[in-house]
Amino acid sequence: MTTKNYYSKNILSALKHDPPGAWMPVVPDGCVRLSSGFPDASLVPVNEIQQAVTRLLNAERDLPLHYVGSPSIDQLQQWLLCRMNERNIHIKRDELLVTSGACQAIDLIARILIDEETYIVVESPTYMEALEIFQNYTDRILTVPVDGNGMQTDKLEDLLAERKLKNQPLPKVVYTIPTFQNPTGTSLSPERRKHLLELAETYDFLVMEDDAYGELSFDQPVNTLKSMDQAGRVFYIGSLSKVVAPGMRVGWIAARAEWIETLFRFKKDLDHPFAQSVMAAFLEETDWTKHLSNLQSLYQSKCSTLLNALEACMPEKVTWTDPKGGYFVWLTIPGADTGALLAKATEAGVSYIPGQYFYLQQENGLSQMRLSFSAADEGEIVEGVRRLAGVFKS
Amino acid sequence: MTTKNYYSKNILSALKHDPPGAWMPVVPDGCVRLSSGFPDASLVPVNEIQQAVTRLLNAERDLPLHYVGSPSIDQLQQWLLCRMNERNIHIKRDELLVTSGACQAIDLIARILIDEETYIVVESPTYMEALEIFQNYTDRILTVPVDGNGMQTDKLEDLLAERKLKNQPLPKVVYTIPTFQNPTGTSLSPERRKHLLELAETYDFLVMEDDAYGELSFDQPVNTLKSMDQAGRVFYIGSLSKVVAPGMRVGWIAARAEWIETLFRFKKDLDHPFAQSVMAAFLEETDWTKHLSNLQSLYQSKCSTLLNALEACMPEKVTWTDPKGGYFVWLTIPGADTGALLAKATEAGVSYIPGQYFYLQQENGLSQMRLSFSAADEGEIVEGVRRLAGVFKS
Repeated sequence: MTTKNYYSKNILSALKHDPPGAWMPVVPDGCVRLSSGFPDASLVPVNEIQQAVTRLLNAERDLPLHYVGSPSIDQLQQWLLCRMNERNIHIKRDELLVTSGACQAIDLIARILIDEETYIVVESPTYMEALEIFQNYTDRILTVPVDGNGMQTDKLEDLLAERKLKNQPLPKVVYTIPTFQNPTGTSLSPERRKHLLELAETYDFLVMEDDAYGELSFDQPVNTLKSMDQAGRVFYIGSLSKVVAPGMRVGWIAARAEWIETLFRFKKDLDHPFAQSVMAAFLEETDWTKHLSNLQSLYQSKCSTLLNALEACMPEKVTWTDPKGGYFVWLTIPGADTGALLAKATEAGVSYIPGQYFYLQQENGLSQMRLSFSAADEGEIVEGVRRLAGVFKS
Repeated sequence: MTTKNYYSKNILSALKHDPPGAWMPVVPDGCVRLSSGFPDASLVPVNEIQQAVTRLLNAERDLPLHYVGSPSIDQLQQWLLCRMNERNIHIKRDELLVTSGACQAIDLIARILIDEETYIVVESPTYMEALEIFQNYTDRILTVPVDGNGMQTDKLEDLLAERKLKNQPLPKVVYTIPTFQNPTGTSLSPERRKHLLELAETYDFLVMEDDAYGELSFDQPVNTLKSMDQAGRVFYIGSLSKVVAPGMRVGWIAARAEWIETLFRFKKDLDHPFAQSVMAAFLEETDWTKHLSNLQSLYQSKCSTLLNALEACMPEKVTWTDPKGGYFVWLTIPGADTGALLAKATEAGVSYIPGQYFYLQQENGLSQMRLSFSAADEGEIVEGVRRLAGVFKS
């Protein structure tokens, strides 16, 4: 028997693409991991989570270990609603769905909106996992370039106007990471945010706002698209992965109640009572303002260290973005092939993610790379940049 | 804007059905919950899981709280492979996918095999959540009745032969819970197991074997379909929900490596490092043979209590199944409408699940109900049956 003869016709187009994670570079031991989008190990609240488990199971006993029934699950939802409220996103319980991280959130939204005839727009470059998810649903993916102020919404408008003029189908969804974008670290300017939502109204599309890094601002808090979304066109995607711990798998969607009801219908991993209850118990005893402020100042310091090291070591032609938050800096090395260079870099003891993996048309990212300042410590960052500069110069 | 105008065409047929859980009866406080498919509270290893978390985080610190990197995740996979091996399912690492419980496993398999043109077969009655999942993919669902020896495979053969004769499309997948079935508690006889796999070969279909209750045997272990599956047509679905704790959300799929690779592509909630690592740490310190034997003897005793209480209290016309394992007994009350009776029953202080919810054609289950002996304690079971008998007699 040939296993592939049995597949649903709805997945045949997805199977034409590489399997997920196929791009993931293997990083040898001893490398400085400027590739890693993990949170800083010292900021992962190991002891606090241990204590949260103890408190939770002492208080609730077997409840968080059943399918439903732990009061802590309600508590987590309540906490997320409050958090949304503080970010000027005023939603009710039926406008919230807790997910297993942002990835499941993106997948669920794609599931209810996108079929193989649907056109969508993504930023170029964009989050590679999101690209993989969208390619499970459609090949009709359009791209809009990102600059130092995020997605170039004037180019989006050109694209939409041209398609309309030519009577081509218009995109149904625009996926954006407007704040401290993965991979560039840049943010959509307030003017462009307004412009994007106006375009959504004029050209009748929906917006997926991936805000995984939104709370990690080095300056003032950044206003979300969802907080400006009068028309209810925005699916807001939140995550505690970058601000608490990714291994807990807690993310969420804020959207119109009708959509939340439909999303829930397709979320077949059920709730995760233990993980969600532990998260609730952790959050209950956490001074969130102080917690965030700790994260912000450490990541800001690490970002400065990275930028200073780049300034000190890099050949003149190399340029980079200037993030105001998040985890990432985006480098451009004119004429380089960062994919080909990676083997030399890891040999020299430093890893990064080659730019190509963040592009639908991979050749667009040949001269670029993503550096992360989140996981490595400051000494490693300095050493990693020194090693990288050595590779560029050789 | 009308939200439903934006939906993917692939979900429109799913939206014609009731939203998930719409059937769930609200059980008033003070009711004996013979409806509940939860494990017995006293068997949920609360203290052991608390200790597992402490051991895990002391030993691995932040590792299980990141996306990947905890050695315990490997350990869980290794444990599952050993467990499969002990049940005569000899698979390698690339033939295993850990999922968020059996529900996600069923959903993922449906995702890769079933589209709106696919015919499938389910048992009648069957697990209601599985029905909901399948209806998210297709309306072409055929049913085969279950008796005291599980699915009536001779009727399945009749159905297949007739469809072939009439040149009608044949089903691609048969979903079965062959051991201690939900809801009937019955098991597929060895002869029928063999027959089912022969039919799969002759009529070229695949089998989804949901084995959530398979280890909860009161007698000898029951051979799985997967252990007899020479042709590689069986997707085995396992779960630790009924034997450890559902709130941990640990299930798995054992199938051909090519299929596992494809299933992984669509599993977009990523791994669950914390929950899976805690499970691994718990299992490492658990004498599984002793653990299972405790579960088996307690559930056997509760099952006997339920059967004896039924024998003592029920009017003569009421009949029930005689499970050799699992969580459930299935009652038939000729002429009753168990859906309509539920309000009276909860008023009298006892709950059950009306039979209709386990049927594609709900009218087939009017005179039936599922009683669970898993969650209520023995005293409650006796009292619950007494109350139920009172309702039937009035």
